[in-house]
Amino acid sequence: MKIDGVASRTIWLQPDGWSVGILDQTMLPHTIVRHTLRTIEDAAHAIKSMQVRGAPLIGVTAAYGVALAMRSDPSDAALKQALGFLAEQRPTAVNLRWALNDLEITLAPLAPKARAAAAYARAGEIAEDDVETCRSIGAHGLRLIRELARDKSGEPVNILTHCNAGWLACVDWGTATSPIYQAHDSGILVHVWVDETRPRCQGSALTAFELAQHGVPYTLIADNAGGHFMQRDCVDMVIVGTDRVTACGDVANKIGTYLKALAAYDNGVPFYVALPYSTIDWSIERGTDIPIEERGADEVLRVQGRLPDGAVASVAISADGTPVRNPAFDVTPAKLVTGFITERGICEASRDGLLSLYPERKSAAA
Amino acid sequence: MKIDGVASRTIWLQPDGWSVGILDQTMLPHTIVRHTLRTIEDAAHAIKSMQVRGAPLIGVTAAYGVALAMRSDPSDAALKQALGFLAEQRPTAVNLRWALNDLEITLAPLAPKARAAAAYARAGEIAEDDVETCRSIGAHGLRLIRELARDKSGEPVNILTHCNAGWLACVDWGTATSPIYQAHDSGILVHVWVDETRPRCQGSALTAFELAQHGVPYTLIADNAGGHFMQRDCVDMVIVGTDRVTACGDVANKIGTYLKALAAYDNGVPFYVALPYSTIDWSIERGTDIPIEERGADEVLRVQGRLPDGAVASVAISADGTPVRNPAFDVTPAKLVTGFITERGICEASRDGLLSLYPERKSAAA
Repeated sequence: MKIDGVASRTIWLQPDGWSVGILDQTMLPHTIVRHTLRTIEDAAHAIKSMQVRGAPLIGVTAAYGVALAMRSDPSDAALKQALGFLAEQRPTAVNLRWALNDLEITLAPLAPKARAAAAYARAGEIAEDDVETCRSIGAHGLRLIRELARDKSGEPVNILTHCNAGWLACVDWGTATSPIYQAHDSGILVHVWVDETRPRCQGSALTAFELAQHGVPYTLIADNAGGHFMQRDCVDMVIVGTDRVTACGDVANKIGTYLKALAAYDNGVPFYVALPYSTIDWSIERGTDIPIEERGADEVLRVQGRLPDGAVASVAISADGTPVRNPAFDVTPAKLVTGFITERGICEASRDGLLSLYPERKSAAA
Repeated sequence: MKIDGVASRTIWLQPDGWSVGILDQTMLPHTIVRHTLRTIEDAAHAIKSMQVRGAPLIGVTAAYGVALAMRSDPSDAALKQALGFLAEQRPTAVNLRWALNDLEITLAPLAPKARAAAAYARAGEIAEDDVETCRSIGAHGLRLIRELARDKSGEPVNILTHCNAGWLACVDWGTATSPIYQAHDSGILVHVWVDETRPRCQGSALTAFELAQHGVPYTLIADNAGGHFMQRDCVDMVIVGTDRVTACGDVANKIGTYLKALAAYDNGVPFYVALPYSTIDWSIERGTDIPIEERGADEVLRVQGRLPDGAVASVAISADGTPVRNPAFDVTPAKLVTGFITERGICEASRDGLLSLYPERKSAAA
């Protein structure tokens, strides 16, 4: 999608043919900064520090990280070490492990000297595949929005989203935002309620930024406010992304998603989760079995923003030494989810629903 | 309760016998600043700008505001104007209207020259009455905590609270915190999950501050996190305050309370609302009829905190011109509330429950 009117992606191969460009998402919306990744350590740092974030983008970055590692040392030992090193940067991100597993299958059988080129090729394919996957998610989700628009008599369809499952979380289009962009581009009136998404404020920093750049009407709200707007009939549907969906349809997503799902359920608001196939973790049955990443206290104790002179600064909002817990995700049980929007279509949030779209898993599940 | 080891209140008559001291809560937890109110405009500004906040404290401040007005002009016209002017500062605060109504009944029949002294006397009584009311709420709530402690085998009772219904919201003790302080003081192990409470961060700024000053163990969390901790059995009960309870038991409280009530209900966690009798609005039947105050966009767009050099600054966390909605309250339906803790005891959240504690309202309700 566009930044300052220029078509952009979140990650790209530089003109030198080997180094990798990324948009530094920790500086948005204040400053548009791009970095160049030249080593696996650069890629790991980008993932760990959330310069890149969002399940699909983490996967692509990890794939390029392996490529950068193979460029300097394509041995079996280096490959094994690269895969392990990258995997530990974000333990909850199933896409990270998915991409690394894919690279392992691609590279392990090859002669070491062939691995770097193969890794770059595969990373590029994963990136293009993500663009196409997101485009398809949008096309399926567009049908849902179009149906809602029929009953709105020319009023906008109000869609609430949490965190950023936008194109900034992917390579392009986004997952939760793809139906929104496609609805907007096809002339359907849409308006997005953007949850701020503390503690990292991905809503105010990223989702608001990308919707504004694309011209989609939106309103920023505190995370506490979504339930109130659902009670007052101001929300027609919720679409969120996810970091991991279990085989029975439980959804791990940014902390606070569960609370919005409860409110949607209580008010009869359809609650959809948009996801690519790679986010389904068929190896885990129940959401309660998903390990929940705990992040640092500073995310809760401090907030980054612009001072009046335009400089970006971090301020402490609580007293020094305040004890903090900071779980990054929560689990929304499948019973609260109206449906999944995937690149293959829409299904209910259950094992049967998932298998209806991915019948090739039936033998694996049996 | 104590600040820096010194017994303190949130509002007090100064030694000069007429001006009124307040603690400026907009500067906490960074700086402890006290102001002197000398005019009704000072009192109105303190209420509107939330230098004083919390239902009971707003009522006491309004009462002193009327006293300050009567000191400069005790005429019928000035009394009427003072009551109207103060009432419009916080439209959702039923305690504000309650206190002003009380002052009107007290002062209107008096000769103008008697009104200032009578207003000061009544304001002082309202303040002392609030201290006693909060102490009684704590004594009743203590029984609930004591019961939970029996099943904890020496582990602390984990209590989640939202916003600040602490002593900083009252004159002393607090409403939601009074049972917690009394449990802690009587040797019961308690631990408090403190919701940050965006957008104004009353949890991180005020509740964390006052619990730390009193020595009660607590952990600060993002507003998004409470549901997760309830799912993982880390919360034994929720106690919140309220700005208005309707005659059938619906609860208006700080935005986001509804979401925590939904999560408590979904996880079988008892959800209690602590309130003084003055917070019950017998004139409103349903929570959906409560007007919801909308506050300024800057509360969502900006965050105040300490810079590394200790100076307090406000930073912008979203792009300039971001559209915002900022409802201050939401309504938790009575069906989600386990019970009310009032100065007269504990009752269920219903008309019958309220009438069982306030039988004198039965004739009014008939």
